[in-house]
Amino acid sequence: MSGAELVTLAHGNGGRLMRELIDGIFARHLANPALRVDCDAVPLDLPPDMEPVVTTDGFIVEPLHFPGGDIGTLAVHGTVNDLAVSGAHPRYLTLGAMIEEGLPLATLDAIVASLAAAAAAAGVVVVAGDTKVVPRGHGGGLYLTTTGVGLRARDCALDIEAIRPGDALLVSGPVGDHGVAVMLAREEFDLRGDLASDCASLVPFCAPLAAMSGVRFMRDATRGGLATVAHEIARATGHDLVLDEAGIPVREQVQGVCEILGYDPYYLACEGRVVAAVAPECAEEVLALWRALPDGDAAEMIGTVGAGRGRVILRTAIGGERFLDELEEDALPRIC
Amino acid sequence: MSGAELVTLAHGNGGRLMRELIDGIFARHLANPALRVDCDAVPLDLPPDMEPVVTTDGFIVEPLHFPGGDIGTLAVHGTVNDLAVSGAHPRYLTLGAMIEEGLPLATLDAIVASLAAAAAAAGVVVVAGDTKVVPRGHGGGLYLTTTGVGLRARDCALDIEAIRPGDALLVSGPVGDHGVAVMLAREEFDLRGDLASDCASLVPFCAPLAAMSGVRFMRDATRGGLATVAHEIARATGHDLVLDEAGIPVREQVQGVCEILGYDPYYLACEGRVVAAVAPECAEEVLALWRALPDGDAAEMIGTVGAGRGRVILRTAIGGERFLDELEEDALPRIC
Repeated sequence: MSGAELVTLAHGNGGRLMRELIDGIFARHLANPALRVDCDAVPLDLPPDMEPVVTTDGFIVEPLHFPGGDIGTLAVHGTVNDLAVSGAHPRYLTLGAMIEEGLPLATLDAIVASLAAAAAAAGVVVVAGDTKVVPRGHGGGLYLTTTGVGLRARDCALDIEAIRPGDALLVSGPVGDHGVAVMLAREEFDLRGDLASDCASLVPFCAPLAAMSGVRFMRDATRGGLATVAHEIARATGHDLVLDEAGIPVREQVQGVCEILGYDPYYLACEGRVVAAVAPECAEEVLALWRALPDGDAAEMIGTVGAGRGRVILRTAIGGERFLDELEEDALPRIC
Repeated sequence: MSGAELVTLAHGNGGRLMRELIDGIFARHLANPALRVDCDAVPLDLPPDMEPVVTTDGFIVEPLHFPGGDIGTLAVHGTVNDLAVSGAHPRYLTLGAMIEEGLPLATLDAIVASLAAAAAAAGVVVVAGDTKVVPRGHGGGLYLTTTGVGLRARDCALDIEAIRPGDALLVSGPVGDHGVAVMLAREEFDLRGDLASDCASLVPFCAPLAAMSGVRFMRDATRGGLATVAHEIARATGHDLVLDEAGIPVREQVQGVCEILGYDPYYLACEGRVVAAVAPECAEEVLALWRALPDGDAAEMIGTVGAGRGRVILRTAIGGERFLDELEEDALPRIC
């Protein structure tokens, strides 16, 4: 494969070039005993004492590479994290790739390599895949869709409806890093910075909590950020969520970019932060556990669940209160 | 939803409009007891006496609607058929949608409705989904990715490596219908016709064969058509595949379009045809079974497996022989 070779429509036609693309890039990087590129469907080894769960997610980020990751790491972490917050150990992934004609093969190769590394680090194997090629001008370079199968304890009690007034709300790290890192990577706003995306597997943060009594519910903050997770909880439970501005960790650089561009960091995407609702008496234990993890030192309690009627209320640093509305306009398309 | 409403970038941002899009279109049509739109991951009920298998497939067809189906029916049948030919009963689907800004909501609604109808007919439920919106000019209206989980008998013996010289090759119906139907729907070539795609669930054709002794292997012909399935078998087994031109069912209209445009019908996409390799003594039983099914009346024996070295040989109607090469150039991009 020379550096100048590009993906052509013939790479998507089912014939020789497609076979070479799959063998030379996808199967090579993703090789594992369960992956069979010559099969229509692949068996899953699922022990009957565990409950299998499934999730799916699409990825359209632009640019394909950004500080802290690329669309390949994102496609692993996004789906792995949906399993992790559900109390499951991620086990299997499937991968659907929609490649735009003209994408350099070297770019695809690098992305699949980092996808493979992220999968290995998260303990999942890619067992099935599909590639399509769309004509130039009908895609964004590369779109990925991953589906994940994980296993959780059959008595796992995590449930959004288990949340009750008085519960503490915790976040595992600073919010908005992914959104700002991608924004800076686009170089649209003449801003520069060294901020990296928080794109990472949340398995280390979620696995110890899955069976901890007092942990009600976890959700990873992604599109729409922390505020959107808060709204989802408020809507599902009917309770108010009261967030303390002073407690919510936001990096200085994220805050700075938001001030310049008029964004609210609570709505900016994360890709490696989990929000947990826990009984107040176990908040400190969870925070201590998280803070002991690499990248967990900024974990914080950010608010509480109140009786109320499904609103998201921000207690500002200067002592006021304001509603955080549900996200309306899209600040930043193609963020994940 | 008025007929003039279009998908906007804000429909993909995780906020209010995305929630309304999911509730108003996806969840409404796809509603079933297992679907939870407020969950990160959804439990699968998989009986331990059966083997779960998984497959994934992406769909980029243009135009989105064509005679005999649309991208929604295709996204169900494509994945269901990969499970069916593996000897599995399709059980669960996940759905990833990448929607281009500007797609009429009414178009999306109609497609999700037909996807739901196809899923119900095939006996699968959609349990998880994801939507992304790409900016205008970065997509092809709508791209879908489905992942399917099915269940098969743990002693299922279907295996491409079980194929041996002397086996009969059967096809369940005429080939190339999907390719020509989509081509005609594009109206690029100033050709008209009333041909419908063969897009359909292959469960009725595959389920009775899964446990039949003498049935070695099944594969659905899709991209690259019958010739590509033949090459996949020849490559995996190392045997020659000898196809009889006189036996291969091709509709007159497909043959006619191929003659005008210089295509070979054996390379044109199908979306509802299965090729089976079976022991010679059970060929008639399988054909009788298939011919008794709706849409199975044109099932035929199309060739045999020979000792050899992995070539695909066509015995022409006039008594000659020629090699069917592996597909190189893409006759028709965005076919499925």
